[in-house]
Amino acid sequence: MLVDKYFTGLALDRKNTKPVYIQLYEQLRNSIEDGIIREDSKLPAIRYLADKLAVNSVTVVNAYKLLEDNKLVYKRMGSGTYVMPLKEKIITEVDANSAVDEMDYGVEGDYDQDIINFASASPDPQLFPLNDFKRVVNEVLERDGGVAFTYQDSLGYKPLRYAISDHMQLNGINASAEDVNIISGAQQGIDIISKVLLSNGDYVFVESPTYMGAVSAFRARGAKIVEIPLKNDGMDMNELEKRLKLIRPKFIYVMPNFQNPTGCSYSERKKKHLLLLCKKYGVLIVEDDYLSDLSFISAAAVPLKAYDSDNRVIYIKSFSKIFMPGLRIAYLIIPQFIREKVANAKYMADISTSGFMQRVLDSYFRSGIWNKHIEYMKKEYSIRYYEAVRASRKLLPGASFNPPNGGLNLWIRLPEEINCGELLAKCSDNKVIFMPGTAFLNSEEGNRYFRLSFAAVKPDKIAEGISIISRLMDSLRNKSIR
Amino acid sequence: MLVDKYFTGLALDRKNTKPVYIQLYEQLRNSIEDGIIREDSKLPAIRYLADKLAVNSVTVVNAYKLLEDNKLVYKRMGSGTYVMPLKEKIITEVDANSAVDEMDYGVEGDYDQDIINFASASPDPQLFPLNDFKRVVNEVLERDGGVAFTYQDSLGYKPLRYAISDHMQLNGINASAEDVNIISGAQQGIDIISKVLLSNGDYVFVESPTYMGAVSAFRARGAKIVEIPLKNDGMDMNELEKRLKLIRPKFIYVMPNFQNPTGCSYSERKKKHLLLLCKKYGVLIVEDDYLSDLSFISAAAVPLKAYDSDNRVIYIKSFSKIFMPGLRIAYLIIPQFIREKVANAKYMADISTSGFMQRVLDSYFRSGIWNKHIEYMKKEYSIRYYEAVRASRKLLPGASFNPPNGGLNLWIRLPEEINCGELLAKCSDNKVIFMPGTAFLNSEEGNRYFRLSFAAVKPDKIAEGISIISRLMDSLRNKSIR
Repeated sequence: MLVDKYFTGLALDRKNTKPVYIQLYEQLRNSIEDGIIREDSKLPAIRYLADKLAVNSVTVVNAYKLLEDNKLVYKRMGSGTYVMPLKEKIITEVDANSAVDEMDYGVEGDYDQDIINFASASPDPQLFPLNDFKRVVNEVLERDGGVAFTYQDSLGYKPLRYAISDHMQLNGINASAEDVNIISGAQQGIDIISKVLLSNGDYVFVESPTYMGAVSAFRARGAKIVEIPLKNDGMDMNELEKRLKLIRPKFIYVMPNFQNPTGCSYSERKKKHLLLLCKKYGVLIVEDDYLSDLSFISAAAVPLKAYDSDNRVIYIKSFSKIFMPGLRIAYLIIPQFIREKVANAKYMADISTSGFMQRVLDSYFRSGIWNKHIEYMKKEYSIRYYEAVRASRKLLPGASFNPPNGGLNLWIRLPEEINCGELLAKCSDNKVIFMPGTAFLNSEEGNRYFRLSFAAVKPDKIAEGISIISRLMDSLRNKSIR
Repeated sequence: MLVDKYFTGLALDRKNTKPVYIQLYEQLRNSIEDGIIREDSKLPAIRYLADKLAVNSVTVVNAYKLLEDNKLVYKRMGSGTYVMPLKEKIITEVDANSAVDEMDYGVEGDYDQDIINFASASPDPQLFPLNDFKRVVNEVLERDGGVAFTYQDSLGYKPLRYAISDHMQLNGINASAEDVNIISGAQQGIDIISKVLLSNGDYVFVESPTYMGAVSAFRARGAKIVEIPLKNDGMDMNELEKRLKLIRPKFIYVMPNFQNPTGCSYSERKKKHLLLLCKKYGVLIVEDDYLSDLSFISAAAVPLKAYDSDNRVIYIKSFSKIFMPGLRIAYLIIPQFIREKVANAKYMADISTSGFMQRVLDSYFRSGIWNKHIEYMKKEYSIRYYEAVRASRKLLPGASFNPPNGGLNLWIRLPEEINCGELLAKCSDNKVIFMPGTAFLNSEEGNRYFRLSFAAVKPDKIAEGISIISRLMDSLRNKSIR
């Protein structure tokens, strides 16, 4: 066999100061990059190649490991090591861009009013409480004048930090104002934490599927990502512990309530189990809480942070979905041991978050308008939620989903015969868009799912949009039967 | 010699799969961290140690290189490799904090009205054009409603990008709207560019003295900093070319107009010379333009970017000093070849800058209020400038400075016998503060200078503050004579 001949013909020089495993890695890498070893072809078994080359099998293991780290090969469980197909490499590149799901594309200029947009998880601009906002803005301008526009303390406007600390008590989180750092949106929080905690080669565990904007930030720091599958009530804890035994990540990144994209929430038992495991293995947790406020069915969702008795959870709270993304305000709750490093990283990122906007938000909290606003958003979103669940159940036969208890998304599994990419292409020709599963899952599995967000679609348009998806699913189904 | 015995006693295991140079590195690292090898002590010469350990000298070179990359040792030209002293490590740590000069400390809570603050280079809040701002804010809210609070295009609000592109023509800069990226303050621009251009071990050239907030961001990416001394009309070009012959930096970071802290401006000849040198050596330039608008004496200061015919200059423009820091808006002009990377880095940093604030600024430009505001600020600042120059000349005998043509700072050299740290301690006991030279210069030289900023001090308080400094200089002088 030609391929076999190639592998046994590799020339390794033991006298070279370059370690043998690196020589082996470099030769394999070059051959993969030059297409001499084809994509998706299987590399020889480790012991076999070690034998042929008369090297220790650890040498081959190390070389394969380097190839894997550099995304040139991938492992299949119980099968072996394969050359990464070009397509996969492209998908990895695309990650940073796939994070566009959070962008409400279409608000500017070329916005097509006719599009039914299930892709955006951002609030409908018409839900924005314009009159309350105007009143508060003008009050702040009257009260603080130019001082509202000077540099703000990098950690945040103190009265707002106190207001948040008080507000958090309602969610069961005991955090002092000193623990609260105001930031310019949750993405900045992810970026800052990545800067503080991650170095090249560190591991981060994430849920699978997950929000790729976070994964991109971790990768940009050189971190390696390990995906832990999600079950209906949170991470697969057996899988998690299996990996924790092998690898100690710098942290685990989770969205324990109304997860993005699945909508799944961790049970109380699982939240506690996660904390216990992390304590056992000495691992931190980054909790991205982007909408625990939006509980439609049961009582309020409890953040993981509320159960965190040993300061293991770094908590990121976004206001983008519940208030408005254009304000660019979020906050962190930071354990003391990294407080100074986080403060430095925040300073270096943008010195401080707009003091004017912080003063406006502070007035919202203090005047009670905030709670009124949350109730209003819950009511508006729940109308859309029930409509989306009803219409999807009725109109998408063969597709399946677990209705979440809150949040803004349904995570819909397509029938076997339908490919998500094809469906999205057809739908967008028909002015309906959604987020394909591939934006949240790197594997082929991604083509089996899509995320349907009902945040930005008016209630009377939801069934219309879903029936268009239904019709196009039928047309694809018929094609595949033919 | 005991030390010699230590080195020759190192145990390297060739059968270990861990490369020998890493084994060597790890043992040296542990001994340095444990204090077994003392700070500032010299490591053995490479060939000598290689001989003693019976390894290839490349192995020792690699181990020393790793130590250097991890800032455990440093090289002295033509002398050898030395253990980094703890002090140096601390100085590196302190850098990030010394960047507080840009914070208007004291705007919140414990603000003491009696302090004469020559430390802050931020505008006096009373200069903020509150009524114009209120009008514009309410106009934007009326016109755009909730849409102003949706996610903004990550690159910026398009009409604002066009307005800036038009406005730049006045400064001689030809940039299309596509070249303009809106960012959340100049510090974010520095951070984003560092992310895009710098990897561990890269070099950056900076002016000396310079703004440490930038240096910290470069260092956080693992960059090594090379300082080029400033002369009265810009960088010392001979020194610059000498270093360029030895080292190719990723970029040179400059503030060509009213430099921070010196106030120095590059002559036109020097601007062109800098561009030529950078072209010759294939180096990029990052121009931090934080207040070229504020020219008091000659005609408007011309940005370096205006002379940049081959797209070598990355231009960062801040509005913090001329408008207000609390808005957190600045912009970048980005050469095309890094446009996509910059866009990704901006997305990862905070998704987008507040769309609401961008709309407000856009209205400022379009309505002509912007130009009116600049004229107003120039007038107000020039009153303070002339007063600061007059009082410093009259009241600080023995101190010297070159009056800049604009900007917000005087960079004052103290008489030999006075130490800046001591003077600052005495002054702040007497409720006058300024920035010590050590915030901009790492060397002992820093103790010979201070930066006197007149942005935040009312004109009638300037002479009063400077006479207090004068009195305390006298008291120190008398002490040193006694």
